[in-house]
Amino acid sequence: MLLNKTIPAKYILNKIKWEVLYVLIIGLLVNFLTAEYRNLIPEMPIAIPTFIGTAISVILSFKINQSYDRWWEARKIWGSIVNDSRSFVLQLQSFISHNKNDEIKELAYRHIAWCFSLGQSLRGNNALENLDRYISDKDLKAIESHNNKPLALLQLNTLQIADLREKGELELFSHIQINNTLVNFSNAMGMAERIKSTVFPKTYRLFLHFFIYIFVVTLSIALRNIDSFFEIPLLLVISSAFFLLEKSATHLQEPFNNKPTDTAVTTIATTIEINIKQLLGEDNVPEPLAPFSYYAM
Amino acid sequence: MLLNKTIPAKYILNKIKWEVLYVLIIGLLVNFLTAEYRNLIPEMPIAIPTFIGTAISVILSFKINQSYDRWWEARKIWGSIVNDSRSFVLQLQSFISHNKNDEIKELAYRHIAWCFSLGQSLRGNNALENLDRYISDKDLKAIESHNNKPLALLQLNTLQIADLREKGELELFSHIQINNTLVNFSNAMGMAERIKSTVFPKTYRLFLHFFIYIFVVTLSIALRNIDSFFEIPLLLVISSAFFLLEKSATHLQEPFNNKPTDTAVTTIATTIEINIKQLLGEDNVPEPLAPFSYYAM
Amino acid sequence: MLLNKTIPAKYILNKIKWEVLYVLIIGLLVNFLTAEYRNLIPEMPIAIPTFIGTAISVILSFKINQSYDRWWEARKIWGSIVNDSRSFVLQLQSFISHNKNDEIKELAYRHIAWCFSLGQSLRGNNALENLDRYISDKDLKAIESHNNKPLALLQLNTLQIADLREKGELELFSHIQINNTLVNFSNAMGMAERIKSTVFPKTYRLFLHFFIYIFVVTLSIALRNIDSFFEIPLLLVISSAFFLLEKSATHLQEPFNNKPTDTAVTTIATTIEINIKQLLGEDNVPEPLAPFSYYAM
Amino acid sequence: MLLNKTIPAKYILNKIKWEVLYVLIIGLLVNFLTAEYRNLIPEMPIAIPTFIGTAISVILSFKINQSYDRWWEARKIWGSIVNDSRSFVLQLQSFISHNKNDEIKELAYRHIAWCFSLGQSLRGNNALENLDRYISDKDLKAIESHNNKPLALLQLNTLQIADLREKGELELFSHIQINNTLVNFSNAMGMAERIKSTVFPKTYRLFLHFFIYIFVVTLSIALRNIDSFFEIPLLLVISSAFFLLEKSATHLQEPFNNKPTDTAVTTIATTIEINIKQLLGEDNVPEPLAPFSYYAM
Amino acid sequence: MLLNKTIPAKYILNKIKWEVLYVLIIGLLVNFLTAEYRNLIPEMPIAIPTFIGTAISVILSFKINQSYDRWWEARKIWGSIVNDSRSFVLQLQSFISHNKNDEIKELAYRHIAWCFSLGQSLRGNNALENLDRYISDKDLKAIESHNNKPLALLQLNTLQIADLREKGELELFSHIQINNTLVNFSNAMGMAERIKSTVFPKTYRLFLHFFIYIFVVTLSIALRNIDSFFEIPLLLVISSAFFLLEKSATHLQEPFNNKPTDTAVTTIATTIEINIKQLLGEDNVPEPLAPFSYYAM
Repeated sequence: MLLNKTIPAKYILNKIKWEVLYVLIIGLLVNFLTAEYRNLIPEMPIAIPTFIGTAISVILSFKINQSYDRWWEARKIWGSIVNDSRSFVLQLQSFISHNKNDEIKELAYRHIAWCFSLGQSLRGNNALENLDRYISDKDLKAIESHNNKPLALLQLNTLQIADLREKGELELFSHIQINNTLVNFSNAMGMAERIKSTVFPKTYRLFLHFFIYIFVVTLSIALRNIDSFFEIPLLLVISSAFFLLEKSATHLQEPFNNKPTDTAVTTIATTIEINIKQLLGEDNVPEPLAPFSYYAM
Repeated sequence: MLLNKTIPAKYILNKIKWEVLYVLIIGLLVNFLTAEYRNLIPEMPIAIPTFIGTAISVILSFKINQSYDRWWEARKIWGSIVNDSRSFVLQLQSFISHNKNDEIKELAYRHIAWCFSLGQSLRGNNALENLDRYISDKDLKAIESHNNKPLALLQLNTLQIADLREKGELELFSHIQINNTLVNFSNAMGMAERIKSTVFPKTYRLFLHFFIYIFVVTLSIALRNIDSFFEIPLLLVISSAFFLLEKSATHLQEPFNNKPTDTAVTTIATTIEINIKQLLGEDNVPEPLAPFSYYAM
Repeated sequence: MLLNKTIPAKYILNKIKWEVLYVLIIGLLVNFLTAEYRNLIPEMPIAIPTFIGTAISVILSFKINQSYDRWWEARKIWGSIVNDSRSFVLQLQSFISHNKNDEIKELAYRHIAWCFSLGQSLRGNNALENLDRYISDKDLKAIESHNNKPLALLQLNTLQIADLREKGELELFSHIQINNTLVNFSNAMGMAERIKSTVFPKTYRLFLHFFIYIFVVTLSIALRNIDSFFEIPLLLVISSAFFLLEKSATHLQEPFNNKPTDTAVTTIATTIEINIKQLLGEDNVPEPLAPFSYYAM
Repeated sequence: MLLNKTIPAKYILNKIKWEVLYVLIIGLLVNFLTAEYRNLIPEMPIAIPTFIGTAISVILSFKINQSYDRWWEARKIWGSIVNDSRSFVLQLQSFISHNKNDEIKELAYRHIAWCFSLGQSLRGNNALENLDRYISDKDLKAIESHNNKPLALLQLNTLQIADLREKGELELFSHIQINNTLVNFSNAMGMAERIKSTVFPKTYRLFLHFFIYIFVVTLSIALRNIDSFFEIPLLLVISSAFFLLEKSATHLQEPFNNKPTDTAVTTIATTIEINIKQLLGEDNVPEPLAPFSYYAM
Repeated sequence: MLLNKTIPAKYILNKIKWEVLYVLIIGLLVNFLTAEYRNLIPEMPIAIPTFIGTAISVILSFKINQSYDRWWEARKIWGSIVNDSRSFVLQLQSFISHNKNDEIKELAYRHIAWCFSLGQSLRGNNALENLDRYISDKDLKAIESHNNKPLALLQLNTLQIADLREKGELELFSHIQINNTLVNFSNAMGMAERIKSTVFPKTYRLFLHFFIYIFVVTLSIALRNIDSFFEIPLLLVISSAFFLLEKSATHLQEPFNNKPTDTAVTTIATTIEINIKQLLGEDNVPEPLAPFSYYAM
């Protein structure tokens, strides 16, 4: 997540360096051609790039809105993980008898492991990294063979709770209640995976790029009467506007991509760890994750 | 679902070949007429196609947004099927005594069959194809006579679970809890069928096409002063922009149509199969479904 | 619901015949006046109709989107009725002992009656029509005196189920579970009635028409230099665009109006009848309702 | 709620009489100044009012959509009150033994009182008016001292139902079920109060008015070459368009304001009264509330 | 929350004073340069700033809508806290035996403390301020060491209710029911924290400012033929329009920021205090919080 701090110009320019280069080449080329073959190339009414500009802004506006929705949905999913994690611990403390505090701790720690594992798995990183801080070697071994590590962790917690019920440490209805919270975790996991695995309709991006280049060509013909000393920078500025918006939207669309614009899943998982440990009354509470210079992961 | 890979130009051009041809004919015809009967045909202020362009972009923007919503809703429905499928197995394991592992497996496999059957039925394919991998011949026979095969499968699971309850293998409240998950499956199935069977308001598409052709005619008259060598390509490019956007939206609108833009229901059903089998602790886990060159089904 | 078939031109032209006539009269009148009193009527910059066009497209875009939402919500409501109807029968079969199959059938048939009755009542038709196929004369008599027939049918089902509970044929919690499904029916009914009874803000439609006429007048003055032979058709085409969009939106807004654009409630009720009868294992299953030439009711 | 009937022109003109007057004065003043000091006041390119027109339509479109959402949400809230009221009575009849019919009637009538009281309280009217038709003097006295009368009524119903539970007339789980319906009433009440008490971001309205006036001034300068005989009406018509849209949106935003555009809460409460009395099998059913000439309250 | 009262001009101008100053400097500079080096600087077609204006309004419209959604969501969250707070007290009174009125009061007061503490914590103020009015010193001490004070308060209430259950003062299912309400509080808290901690995509704001300045530069070149006596104010007015909209949106985006545009959390918490105390039948009910001159906190 980008923070409310100064964002390095380099970060932004880096996003669109290739596009700007292409536009520069097109601008120079058109300039050269219109100068050489003035008679062959007709006047271009400024209305032509305007038309194309209309199509561009229709898609752009659509894309910006939908990508924001994806980004915000991803954040909401992780927000609901925070809420359900807190409720989960409070429910364990409410419904399981006090002499089972060790098991409560085991369940709560395994849940912390689930949060970190889910974040790493969504980002395509090693979903087992650092989990040994929270779960036993036996658990680690059990989940190793699974394709979907977080799901395996969830199963371990589900079965241990079912076991508590069987031993009579949990009333039937409390079991159901805690089970509902586990269903919420399963849903949140699936929703995040859905965002991760669903490619935004590819064709819109393609057409968008295509239209922007058509726009650049027609605009540069339409503006040929302006001194090229001014025309080229103008072209660059206007087309950058479109490209920057498109890139920003594209990055928001993919909130689990190991980029500064990602949903800050590691930071959130650390917050959950702090909350859970304080609810358990523990002292070994970690510091909130410090952000990077202009973003938090 | 189109993947983040290079999409063949042929695929895209194929979408609008007829429309481009019509525009070409219109362009040539207008060109010929305005050349022949110059005095009869008046100047067309460029503002006229602009007006029509406004109407076009209003509908286009509406259509793109709503079709994305349909497509995204279809994906969400299948995402919730993934989530509920995982919860379903975890609930069976939590609430049914261990000595009934055979029945749990039977229920889980029948559920896998339901996923594949629903996907095939939504796409208008044979809803019984390959189901013999997951369910018994008796089951196959039982559902044969039903119009709605997935619904029949769901009924089989519902009744078997009711039977477990009657035999006392399941407590009342656990029965209710699992029943709720089955209700979720029934809802997801109905929601996908709703998207499949509801035609997007036909008239908007009709008007959209009508307006684009009017736009093409008026624009080609307005541009008649430009050399036809340039005018015709311009016409084609601008009108293609509109047609491509319209087609893309139309394809997104129908996410269960056996097209590359479909929701990838077979891929998702395979993921569910993998998840369920690993939760059951089985070894015969299939590979994730390999995507086609530029799309996944 | 309009189907994906050729829609007769007559159907479409019929929608806007009066508006087109008015525009024709305005066009001729302005043409005549500007010809007669050229000196008195000043030049009209084309920017004036453009301004008004902006206001028109703001409202139009708003209206199209909101009317689609109403239409889609109506479809969703009936979709949820389909889902809950299936779940209802499955729940009856799960929770009521088998020796009560007659009562299950009576409840299920009365529910089919509810679906048809609700559809007819929403369309302002006789809510009792053909109900004798599904319910007894005693039931028919009982609901006769009620203002809201579907609500009376729902009460009959609710009380019969409460009666089953009292007789001990239903456990408390299963009763609650089925009751929740009945609450869903009550909610769906109320939501459909809300759409039926809530008039879309009248003033927007009024202003929209007013603005379109002002637009026509100013545009026809602005275009007076064009030959009237071309101007009048142009006026008609452009204003038809706006009127057609407005009409389409207006029809979508009222999805229970006995029009071809209605939500296809009779078709859906028939689907429910088929599903329920097959879930009950019956043979007298009706055919799916055949659509009309270009629409389904 | 405005009905589908002819709306008196007076009602509409009344909305914007002051704004039109200001625009008239501005138009005349600019006309006079540009005539007197022609040389001092420069040409105004028509593009300037166009820019401002863009800003205006961005906010206008935003405002129209959001105010519609508020209005529609208000209607939905009252729709859910209708649904829950019906379910409430059906639940009382399902779960409370028949020999308590008097208490069921008392609870149902107190609920009718709640509906009317909530409607009146939202509109800022006397929340106790006419309640003596439905509740006892003792009840009236009990709620008198409360700031929030409907909340006090809800508490009376909640406590009476808890009392029935304590007396054993209600099973625990049925109690919970009915309690959930009461929670729905509490939520609906709070949601309506939220809409009532939350002022739509004031600044947008301010800027909107400010921009419209700037627009009027610049447009009137830009059009000074047109005969003032035509210019002034043009100015009035175009600016009225913006003002009318703004006013309509503002009225929709405040659906509990004792205006014809209000959500028709009294009509809805009367419908609830009819439904509840017929479900109770009573004969003293009131007529549906007759609408006023062009609106229903 | 800004009220429906006159907003001081100073408040509004203060928002954009720096931006207006920059625009003034740019305007004067361009004016001076175009006067000095007229021949070097070419004509700027007015279409160039129009293009940029299009990009600006696409982002602006997006930003205004999304920031309103954030603001409205924040208000909805606090609205649901109001509703759940009322339901919480009614549930305590319904499900806990009357001889435990002291404990009910303790729970209800601690809940009032939670509301105030959450509001202060969201605004970055001292989350313990004034809490001694509602909770005991022991409680204050217990929550002191927690990072998240409101969460600690919620835990205290959850554990005390679990204690009541253990003592047999609460039936299992009533426990679950009240627990669900506590889960709602936990969710509302987490949702508000999510809005507080999620920075709106920074890049859009950056690009927006960048585009507005480019717009100002190009527009001032395009308008150079107008007397600078008129041009500069025009520039200022038009660019202020954009800046004011941007600032208003930015403020709405951050509804817990100790600003007049904040969600009025203290006012709402006071309303909750009044409601709860009257439901408890107490007399020491505070006055509703008086608003400030033009806003409520």
